Amino acid sequence: MATAARRHHDPEIRGFASDNYAGAHPEVLAALALANGGHQVAYGGDAYTGHLQELIREHFGPRAEAFPVFNGTGANVVSLQALTDRWGAVICAESAHINVDEGGAPERVASLKLLTVPTPDGKLTPELIDRQAFGWEDEHRAMPQAVSITQSTELGTLYTPDEIRAICEHAHERGMKVHLDGSRIANAAAALDLPVRAFTTDAGVDILSFGGTKNGMVFGEAVVVLAPERVRHMKHLRKLSMQLASKMRFVSVQLEALLADGLWLRSARHSNAMAQRLARAVGAVEGVEIIYPVQANGVFARLPHDVSERLQKRYRFYFWDEPAGEVRWMCSFDTTEEDVDGFVAALQEELAR
Amino acid sequence: MATAARRHHDPEIRGFASDNYAGAHPEVLAALALANGGHQVAYGGDAYTGHLQELIREHFGPRAEAFPVFNGTGANVVSLQALTDRWGAVICAESAHINVDEGGAPERVASLKLLTVPTPDGKLTPELIDRQAFGWEDEHRAMPQAVSITQSTELGTLYTPDEIRAICEHAHERGMKVHLDGSRIANAAAALDLPVRAFTTDAGVDILSFGGTKNGMVFGEAVVVLAPERVRHMKHLRKLSMQLASKMRFVSVQLEALLADGLWLRSARHSNAMAQRLARAVGAVEGVEIIYPVQANGVFARLPHDVSERLQKRYRFYFWDEPAGEVRWMCSFDTTEEDVDGFVAALQEELAR
Amino acid sequence: MATAARRHHDPEIRGFASDNYAGAHPEVLAALALANGGHQVAYGGDAYTGHLQELIREHFGPRAEAFPVFNGTGANVVSLQALTDRWGAVICAESAHINVDEGGAPERVASLKLLTVPTPDGKLTPELIDRQAFGWEDEHRAMPQAVSITQSTELGTLYTPDEIRAICEHAHERGMKVHLDGSRIANAAAALDLPVRAFTTDAGVDILSFGGTKNGMVFGEAVVVLAPERVRHMKHLRKLSMQLASKMRFVSVQLEALLADGLWLRSARHSNAMAQRLARAVGAVEGVEIIYPVQANGVFARLPHDVSERLQKRYRFYFWDEPAGEVRWMCSFDTTEEDVDGFVAALQEELAR
Amino acid sequence: MATAARRHHDPEIRGFASDNYAGAHPEVLAALALANGGHQVAYGGDAYTGHLQELIREHFGPRAEAFPVFNGTGANVVSLQALTDRWGAVICAESAHINVDEGGAPERVASLKLLTVPTPDGKLTPELIDRQAFGWEDEHRAMPQAVSITQSTELGTLYTPDEIRAICEHAHERGMKVHLDGSRIANAAAALDLPVRAFTTDAGVDILSFGGTKNGMVFGEAVVVLAPERVRHMKHLRKLSMQLASKMRFVSVQLEALLADGLWLRSARHSNAMAQRLARAVGAVEGVEIIYPVQANGVFARLPHDVSERLQKRYRFYFWDEPAGEVRWMCSFDTTEEDVDGFVAALQEELAR
Repeated sequence: MATAARRHHDPEIRGFASDNYAGAHPEVLAALALANGGHQVAYGGDAYTGHLQELIREHFGPRAEAFPVFNGTGANVVSLQALTDRWGAVICAESAHINVDEGGAPERVASLKLLTVPTPDGKLTPELIDRQAFGWEDEHRAMPQAVSITQSTELGTLYTPDEIRAICEHAHERGMKVHLDGSRIANAAAALDLPVRAFTTDAGVDILSFGGTKNGMVFGEAVVVLAPERVRHMKHLRKLSMQLASKMRFVSVQLEALLADGLWLRSARHSNAMAQRLARAVGAVEGVEIIYPVQANGVFARLPHDVSERLQKRYRFYFWDEPAGEVRWMCSFDTTEEDVDGFVAALQEELAR
Repeated sequence: MATAARRHHDPEIRGFASDNYAGAHPEVLAALALANGGHQVAYGGDAYTGHLQELIREHFGPRAEAFPVFNGTGANVVSLQALTDRWGAVICAESAHINVDEGGAPERVASLKLLTVPTPDGKLTPELIDRQAFGWEDEHRAMPQAVSITQSTELGTLYTPDEIRAICEHAHERGMKVHLDGSRIANAAAALDLPVRAFTTDAGVDILSFGGTKNGMVFGEAVVVLAPERVRHMKHLRKLSMQLASKMRFVSVQLEALLADGLWLRSARHSNAMAQRLARAVGAVEGVEIIYPVQANGVFARLPHDVSERLQKRYRFYFWDEPAGEVRWMCSFDTTEEDVDGFVAALQEELAR
Repeated sequence: MATAARRHHDPEIRGFASDNYAGAHPEVLAALALANGGHQVAYGGDAYTGHLQELIREHFGPRAEAFPVFNGTGANVVSLQALTDRWGAVICAESAHINVDEGGAPERVASLKLLTVPTPDGKLTPELIDRQAFGWEDEHRAMPQAVSITQSTELGTLYTPDEIRAICEHAHERGMKVHLDGSRIANAAAALDLPVRAFTTDAGVDILSFGGTKNGMVFGEAVVVLAPERVRHMKHLRKLSMQLASKMRFVSVQLEALLADGLWLRSARHSNAMAQRLARAVGAVEGVEIIYPVQANGVFARLPHDVSERLQKRYRFYFWDEPAGEVRWMCSFDTTEEDVDGFVAALQEELAR
Repeated sequence: MATAARRHHDPEIRGFASDNYAGAHPEVLAALALANGGHQVAYGGDAYTGHLQELIREHFGPRAEAFPVFNGTGANVVSLQALTDRWGAVICAESAHINVDEGGAPERVASLKLLTVPTPDGKLTPELIDRQAFGWEDEHRAMPQAVSITQSTELGTLYTPDEIRAICEHAHERGMKVHLDGSRIANAAAALDLPVRAFTTDAGVDILSFGGTKNGMVFGEAVVVLAPERVRHMKHLRKLSMQLASKMRFVSVQLEALLADGLWLRSARHSNAMAQRLARAVGAVEGVEIIYPVQANGVFARLPHDVSERLQKRYRFYFWDEPAGEVRWMCSFDTTEEDVDGFVAALQEELAR
């Protein structure tokens, strides 16, 4: 089909800046076309959103329900509102995306207080949670009502199912609920090689943000309610948070394309494998230090600042902590072995200068 | 390209419920494919969002700048925040989408007070604005800082460029700024048969929500800043309002597909024409009364309640004011003449029962 | 006791501008001294706040609980938050103080959507409520969860206990709760000559703002919870709304001074009687029209604009609707018969010019 | 004057729990009576609020303006809103009252993001500020627009004027404004033995919360604007934040009683001296360790937990960090030498058990 739009970029150039620098998986695009044509009830009354519920129940158990939304910040902020009252606060890692990378949306859109805890590797533990989990009866303190964890974390690390279960039990015993930011949940499921419900529903998570955009969707995520008795009025919360898509069929069918026969895991396994390949290669390079365990699709490394700067002229990637010389290299579903090998070669060249 | 997703609906069935029951225009889908592949800077640093600025300047003048967002509520609430301070309020028609159809998002997300005015036809005038435009120095009153109008309105009516100019002058003289909710701006431009800037930039509008979804996009709208000196920090406001798409190229290229050679107007002219065809036909039917001027793509009518109920079993549409027997019939880019004629025939059959 | 502060005003000058232009009742000031000295637990753990609960239960029934706050806006916004969820909205009269006179605090502090209804006399009815009471399942609409009424109203009118009971039953049947803004509740109780619980607790009101400042307190009001099972976490809501007084004993002892032996009613009866005296006198004056029933301590009248302006140079009072020539004359606990008679004489002089 | 209220407490019992457990200074109560009687314009149009401005200018310089409010949380949240836009964030010490003791009011009432920094002694420095002062152009990050410091701090420590000047210069160079939480500013002024403007106006502070309640007022604080060109619309912000007192004369006259001839400093010097007396005495007691420099009216100490618990049965005071065995002892304007000596004797008795 013709279009008046024109191509403005080179589709052969890839880097290591972010999994959302990648485009959409071709199978996802094909799904959009499939769902097109004719009229479908707007705002979620369509056949695709209906069918999505079946897939979600297959993956997350019979009580799970999906609420498609636009983006990850939206998924997180809707989820956290569903777990808290006006007086509630959320305990999270200091490095959590909700704390450092969402422009203050939790505070601004939902008036939420985040109670943050420094962590060595982006992961909370019951002990770390306890640094903020107190004072429920003290009105001078925002009341801790929820814990939010990220899987895989912003630092490319993973929780085991047992670690998540321990957090959920700890939280629930104290009357708190648990949100899991699963912006990269596919990478976690692939890396753990476990059914996703093993570290979500079965571990006691109450609600999760199921990531789609970073794993090959054009746009879209889903809030998945796992413990419906602990969550209220998702429909209204999604709408008032400006995350209700009118043509929701187009979000739902993308999620179907991911979930129906495992595309989400195939893509995640691939990006994880590329990160492993990259980590193995650079781990052997003198002058580069890998600073967190490489457990998902991100590699965090420390190297001379000038080397990074020269390398950035050849491949896009971000400093993570620029004064400390730390960088982040992300792999995505479309990263190729050649991309990795070429990048490592370039790194070695720049180090050798 | 294969996909694991399957078709769950009949692409030949259409109704008159809403322009967002329609799917995406095929040219728009084709544009998505064109923008796919390779890596592009996320969050708006891509080539498509860059190119979009040129198109926007062609349509809205050399100072215009586009900020793609996810949906109409998002476009409106980001725009209104850009025009107001913490203490500001927005004057709008009682029937405005921001007042009655956004789940309270302006109040909840942006803590905005809406100062509403009843109108006969969804249109504000300087006189109607003055019912709320006072008390700027009185801290007991939320300070009127902006006026929001809708073009075409929620009732299918149109402002002339002169009417908009009069509103903008009136507002500006009183220190207020003007937002135009252009969820259906294409229908207005097509109906007025004028360049869009004639009733926006040139009429004095400061910021507008440029609608895409209702006019054939998969998703996406754009906030268009027309008077940059009156608007601050759009980038931060979009992000904190959870309306920043990571893979923004896919919003921008859809807007390009609409704007590059007039698809947006062709589609709007078609849906307007279908509304005219429908209005002409039902206007001749005894027992049906058209209640607002049919100036864009919607027809509002009054007919016996039982007739509406029977007709709804054959074609989807909504009651507008159910106790009053009022219904709304919307046409979209994919409405066919056969759809209209079939609908009118069905209406006559149900009236005759 | 000496003080370095000096007197800067004439304590013999009074007007008809507002009941909060008046100072404090001498008995209230005496109560402050009584509660002074020694240390008392801050933030409500003091003996005075404890004792206040007994008085509140005497007046409002055995389940009532008082939460002292700073001011009327605070009492209202804390109350409304206690009745609503994040997605809730409040139905109120268009003329309600929460809608027109609180600087947008409900929207800004609590992100509340107000669903307003025009009324002839400031009073809601079940029928008027129904203009906004619908769409609970529709997430595009802010969900009506509460009704707020004012007694006596902003227009000086009164609800009968039966009228309030009808509103409460109507609201409760629809799953909504009821707030009563009792900024001038003493004037209502005095005018109705009924125990206050007859038109609050016994009529089905769930929570109320009990006014103190307008009835002779230095500062302070109390949120009184009447139906504890319908209200949650007042303590946290009061604190996060910045309405928690550290030296709460000084709010509570003022409320005790009002409630312990009827000072609140004596003062209200007096101000009501002064309004009656004023209404009788001006009602007989040609050229002045009383526009609402005078049922509490306010008189609303229409008279020539220039007369009002000249009269304002002699006695302070406000225009209510200046273009319409409407003014408001409020009586307070310290208004004297001489004040009223002098004002009426001045009015007649200015009319005669 | 008689009152129906009765005394419910023993005015001879005092403890070390908080300076707001104390009542009002008798001179302050006397001032209330002086301002009573007659009618005065509500909401700040009274003679006392007018006169207060002169006193404030005497203390803070010719550009200073005072906005009386109800309480400290209110003063802080109004101030911070005046320094920030919707997208702004505030850098503060992790131990700041706004972060840990205000029930989340900054986030809930003002949708503010706090960017916190751990400190050794409650004091920020330019270096500590820089841990959060970055990323102004990055919309993924809440924009640092203000720095908030506390003088004297929550830990009883003091900034020198030079330290505050360095912070203000650092902040201003980066486009940020500075708020000073002066809940105990009198204790700081007394301890430093300097005119208050030396460490506020002259050091570059833009706005401050001037504390009254903790220093002998019945209630009330004032936001004092020092740099009017950097602060907007205080009047509206105070009202919409529910901090506008109708009978403002009663807040203003209390502030006058404090400021007119130095009562505020006399009281603060006394409470500081009592803290010194206490610190000297307990510093000599084996088994008790003073953990922060005693520079104002608070003493923080570490001692055996069981000793604290027994001592709390004799004198009220709070644990500061209960697991660590840390307690806080606060002195107030009414603390006597006998109170201190009696407390130290009791401490020694309990230690000896």
